[in-house]
Amino acid sequence: MLPYYRRVHRKVDGRELVLYGLHPLEAPPLPELREPLSPNPHLRYHPLRQEWVVYAAHRQERTFLPPKEHCPLCPSREGGFPTEIPFPHFQVAVFENRFPSLVPNPAPPPEGLPVPVGRALGRCEVVVYTEAHVGSLATLTEEERLLLAWVWRDRYRALYALEGVRFVMPFENRGEAVGVTLHHPHGQIYAYPFVPPILERESQAFRERPVLLELFPHLEPYRVDGEEGFLAFVPPFARYPYEVWVAPLERHPGLWTFSQGEMAAFARLLGRVVARYDALFGEAFPYVMVFHAAPLGEERTFHFHVEFYPPKRAKDKLKFLAGTELGAGTFVVDALPEETAKRLREVL
Amino acid sequence: MLPYYRRVHRKVDGRELVLYGLHPLEAPPLPELREPLSPNPHLRYHPLRQEWVVYAAHRQERTFLPPKEHCPLCPSREGGFPTEIPFPHFQVAVFENRFPSLVPNPAPPPEGLPVPVGRALGRCEVVVYTEAHVGSLATLTEEERLLLAWVWRDRYRALYALEGVRFVMPFENRGEAVGVTLHHPHGQIYAYPFVPPILERESQAFRERPVLLELFPHLEPYRVDGEEGFLAFVPPFARYPYEVWVAPLERHPGLWTFSQGEMAAFARLLGRVVARYDALFGEAFPYVMVFHAAPLGEERTFHFHVEFYPPKRAKDKLKFLAGTELGAGTFVVDALPEETAKRLREVL
Repeated sequence: MLPYYRRVHRKVDGRELVLYGLHPLEAPPLPELREPLSPNPHLRYHPLRQEWVVYAAHRQERTFLPPKEHCPLCPSREGGFPTEIPFPHFQVAVFENRFPSLVPNPAPPPEGLPVPVGRALGRCEVVVYTEAHVGSLATLTEEERLLLAWVWRDRYRALYALEGVRFVMPFENRGEAVGVTLHHPHGQIYAYPFVPPILERESQAFRERPVLLELFPHLEPYRVDGEEGFLAFVPPFARYPYEVWVAPLERHPGLWTFSQGEMAAFARLLGRVVARYDALFGEAFPYVMVFHAAPLGEERTFHFHVEFYPPKRAKDKLKFLAGTELGAGTFVVDALPEETAKRLREVL
Repeated sequence: MLPYYRRVHRKVDGRELVLYGLHPLEAPPLPELREPLSPNPHLRYHPLRQEWVVYAAHRQERTFLPPKEHCPLCPSREGGFPTEIPFPHFQVAVFENRFPSLVPNPAPPPEGLPVPVGRALGRCEVVVYTEAHVGSLATLTEEERLLLAWVWRDRYRALYALEGVRFVMPFENRGEAVGVTLHHPHGQIYAYPFVPPILERESQAFRERPVLLELFPHLEPYRVDGEEGFLAFVPPFARYPYEVWVAPLERHPGLWTFSQGEMAAFARLLGRVVARYDALFGEAFPYVMVFHAAPLGEERTFHFHVEFYPPKRAKDKLKFLAGTELGAGTFVVDALPEETAKRLREVL
């Protein structure tokens, strides 16, 4: 295990902030603003799609603590405007989202609704990758990226330990094309009180057969990059033009069972995939990146992998999800995976 | 049945064009351009999501027949540049999409892929609502909107009659926020050779219980508008802030079983929902509208309804689908259905 330091700080509004670093984290906290929090999300059941929908009405007023010219994910400066992280330095910071969709102690859901309701139990975290305001998974140093991988691992441990949590998903929304307004390199983690529909589906597929292990011998034309024990590839059935998956060649339920060497290989490969993306059009490439690890109880068959969904089909063209994708669930793709894989393979 | 006229024209490139009108359609066709067509879509199976993905690689070069300043969905003018519709006038025009994802005679799918493949059998049509370049479902005259409803009904008949088709879905993508580049009022229809995942799911739900019939008695707070026998409402489990459904109060598998009066009530209500949308922010309101009718074999339990998915959560704010929606399938919504229903109810 990477010898990292971990420091838990309770913010003045009660939210937890965890600092991770390769060096001791001993600076005293700087002043914080106390802003009222009133998260009261709840769940409603969609009886036709047979899935939970999360209502987090307070998110509508998503304002942010500091004025616009200040980045809330930067370190705080002595005498400066307080950010979300009241410390002058950090390496990786994880804190509870100010506008959470899922919370550890949700209020009871509203009564009298014509569909089943549920408590929005869980937790939503923000993971700040670095104190530097500009950068990405690709520009972190190898050491920083490895620390970040260990942070994800520690968050899996911490969040799966919460009562009632059934699925934990680190993810990153990157770029304005996917709705991001804060550009400071960061991701998020949702800890859900149910197994979300896509994971339900994948779990079922993995229970039936080792889908990824069966695919690997045939992926040469789809290969984008690799590291000892890991493959980055465009799935032969990609739903987005430049979709890429990263997976260990041996089955792991999550990165929590990786060896030290596997942690390092995984972190390197993830960084190189983003570097390839950024090289593709010569600019920061927008994407949604999600980690699919085993939901609770699926550890014996689920095969951990990362999926990147990029919204671009060309430098200046977006792939919009519309009638067939949103209304039928069937994706139409205008680029062949073997061709986009070749482009991503040859770009670096 | 509405006494409308129907004229089938074979375009010079072999595609079918059907003109519908309340008056005889007798003008001779104007000259057409013959552009090479090479649609060769195919299907690949996604083994983890267990669904088909459609590859339509030729769509990447989607250029259009006429230069940009000409609308391809307007009528052609004598001596002018040929549009998709080589007639000087029409009321509603339906033609096979020049860049189809599904085709009546697909080439065999590629061989040697590591996942199951399939023929992209089916049909993709464009439905031009009116010859007028500017307008919407809301601004059509009552007579025009009723004709359009009968056109949808006729297309259901024609497309479900095609060998191998298992689901037919009229839909409309409206506005640049959902990727639309042609503003002439129009929709599309896809005829699929399989039951798409969302319809599979809904069919299963309806087989288990009459979900909509059970909901209707409880929808007063969610009501947006109504007509004799029809209700427009925000579902209490909406996945988009201003999502609206339109459904008949009695179960119909599709609009093909509506009475004459029901056809008219349905058409009127659909128009008023769009009028309410447009009044909401005082501008054309973008949406994806999909018709969910019974897939083949589900006629005895499926309850026809229309779903509108608007991408806006405020006048200048889009709801982006990102990590939790795309990667887990769980929607987070920041507006309560009972509140958006009230706004839509009171706006007109």
